[in-house]
Amino acid sequence: MNINNNYLNLKDSYLFARISGEVKSYKAQNPGREVISLGIGDVTLPLAPAVVLALSKAAAEMGDAETFRGYGEYEGEPFLRKAVADYYAKKDIELDTGEVFISDGSKSDVGNILDIFSADNTVLIPDPVYPVYVDTNIMAGRRVVYMNGNEGNGFLPLPDKDVKADIIYLCSPNNPTGAVYSKEQLESWVDFAIENDAVILFDSAYEAFIRDESLPTSIFQASGAWECAIEFCSLSKTAGFTGTRCGYTVVPHGLERGGEALNRLWMRRQSTKFNGVPYIVQRGAEAVFTDEGMAQTKENINYYMGNAKLITDTLSALGIWYTGGENSPYVWFKCPGGMPSWDFFSRLLREADIVGTPGAGFGENGEGFFRLTAFGDRENVAEAMRRFKKFMMGFDESVF
Amino acid sequence: MNINNNYLNLKDSYLFARISGEVKSYKAQNPGREVISLGIGDVTLPLAPAVVLALSKAAAEMGDAETFRGYGEYEGEPFLRKAVADYYAKKDIELDTGEVFISDGSKSDVGNILDIFSADNTVLIPDPVYPVYVDTNIMAGRRVVYMNGNEGNGFLPLPDKDVKADIIYLCSPNNPTGAVYSKEQLESWVDFAIENDAVILFDSAYEAFIRDESLPTSIFQASGAWECAIEFCSLSKTAGFTGTRCGYTVVPHGLERGGEALNRLWMRRQSTKFNGVPYIVQRGAEAVFTDEGMAQTKENINYYMGNAKLITDTLSALGIWYTGGENSPYVWFKCPGGMPSWDFFSRLLREADIVGTPGAGFGENGEGFFRLTAFGDRENVAEAMRRFKKFMMGFDESVF
Repeated sequence: MNINNNYLNLKDSYLFARISGEVKSYKAQNPGREVISLGIGDVTLPLAPAVVLALSKAAAEMGDAETFRGYGEYEGEPFLRKAVADYYAKKDIELDTGEVFISDGSKSDVGNILDIFSADNTVLIPDPVYPVYVDTNIMAGRRVVYMNGNEGNGFLPLPDKDVKADIIYLCSPNNPTGAVYSKEQLESWVDFAIENDAVILFDSAYEAFIRDESLPTSIFQASGAWECAIEFCSLSKTAGFTGTRCGYTVVPHGLERGGEALNRLWMRRQSTKFNGVPYIVQRGAEAVFTDEGMAQTKENINYYMGNAKLITDTLSALGIWYTGGENSPYVWFKCPGGMPSWDFFSRLLREADIVGTPGAGFGENGEGFFRLTAFGDRENVAEAMRRFKKFMMGFDESVF
Repeated sequence: MNINNNYLNLKDSYLFARISGEVKSYKAQNPGREVISLGIGDVTLPLAPAVVLALSKAAAEMGDAETFRGYGEYEGEPFLRKAVADYYAKKDIELDTGEVFISDGSKSDVGNILDIFSADNTVLIPDPVYPVYVDTNIMAGRRVVYMNGNEGNGFLPLPDKDVKADIIYLCSPNNPTGAVYSKEQLESWVDFAIENDAVILFDSAYEAFIRDESLPTSIFQASGAWECAIEFCSLSKTAGFTGTRCGYTVVPHGLERGGEALNRLWMRRQSTKFNGVPYIVQRGAEAVFTDEGMAQTKENINYYMGNAKLITDTLSALGIWYTGGENSPYVWFKCPGGMPSWDFFSRLLREADIVGTPGAGFGENGEGFFRLTAFGDRENVAEAMRRFKKFMMGFDESVF
């Protein structure tokens, strides 16, 4: 019996688990302090009334023999796949419902999609990035190469002709940097992918936060993407579904590699290792896409974006370099005085009782940067920004 | 770019998809006929009132800022892990809640657990068996060897000293045969696993149907299992959760291979590729384990077992050899006249309007056998059995 030894190449602890551990121990040692978390990207506003109503109605249906539902379709209920296709139609993207797979969240699908690709593929991943892209590939023993995000390119790396890759991860709006690719930039990635016979795994989990209408909210707004891209999206941030679990993955019919339709391979994977999303949750998700649901969830997004503005205004006032916050719930800034990001994490926690996320947790290029999220309560964010200003104004670089 | 070529070694279509296709086309050609399905193992009775109440209450909580829940624990909410541990305590099995992982169903976990094992392991799988065990291993390119279930051993194969294996699948009560291992038989598997440094993946999805108190409902009732077994269970059949999606997986702290605790590896897998089960669903699942929920779900199980009795009584009356039906919702019988099982499927559909599952779909040793399930409506099962008797009595072996 051999275990999967690739697991031994993983770093010891998942980023958020480490943060959670450090915060717990700080709180235990400092029981009186009111710690404000602008760390992990979890939502705080409740589900929209239209969603709650749909969930309750579906729960009642499950208690009645006439309307009870057993196994659903592996790829999701037709009503929800149609709602997703209609949502894309509003973006002028025409989807067949057979291209839509309902998932329990984009994290699951972003990891599980790798099942259909060979372990000998080379993977190109932006640095910094959501740690799951890297870890899921290390688990399979794949070769990972990185593309550098940095201050110079605004954390939006573009293709490098000298790099060869088979699988390319893009995340826009980006987690953790909040940076958003333009249509032209995405098209340069599409061209690169087609030239290299590569597949782009496009994570659009934060698309609902894009307010600048000139920016693409889907890779399929870039010409040629149908031939080379798979898109992952989630209702976690769009509609507060982090604890309710629903997302969707779009695998175009026309996407083929090695003579095989990836849509068919993914269907085979899902029908073998997955049994669909709870019916009740799918009804809740359907409600998100109604006019009423859209209006209600938009209100929540506006609330979070108001928080983002408090954060970016504070950073601007302090003259700190940042990305994000305008079309994304994440704000990514440069630690003062060239401070390493875990050190800044500790000082911000100890001196201002604020929890953020150290950029180094997202990759080497994240070192020296820091992420704050806009998902908090308005009062808390405002209070955190007051403390942050005070902390930064008293910040003594020479201590360091 | 290479796809995972192991996928090309999979058989063309998943068993139930093929059945569903054949039935659809039969119905389209014969619109007047009332087809009764005793095929796919899907439940038909609604969720228990206690569960529906818990689901509705949790949906309401999600709509209120005070009680809203975002991301939960990857391994499941503490309240549900405790409820599962308490359920095991009633079986005289002492579990630490850290050994319990909540899943979206045992199908997902049975497939995903393979992530933590090397692809060079040899896998021992009973034949016939639930197709997912085989397919998930073919997808990873693992070597699969089979153990023969047959009339002689009552479809309960026991260890063969000449066979070496690293991963052993056991399913008891078995799907599709309904056969149940005794404690002594399980202990012989445990001994074999320990001797071979192997791990048993024990699927106990049907444990709630065991009525004979001398039979084990968990592998952990066999001595030594803590050192060599992982158990997968589900509320799909126990409590009608096929469309609600919740199960649990027990990975003992003491289970190590290659010097690594499998519990830790599985936690790493889940925290990286999974984000937990919907909070609402976990509250529904918690209600299953209350006294009220247990009593209500037990009623449903009794109803199904009443159906099973109708089926086994019919088979007994006809002198047909069968297993299952007494401690399992599945009845597995020998096709008359040595008929191949897909041919029997077609004749049963065309001549009696009954859908069953051809044994051949579960492996080579299933050829010549057939599965009926007890999950139907009582009236329908009774009507199906009337038709079945008529069909069998008029069955002309010479046609064949």
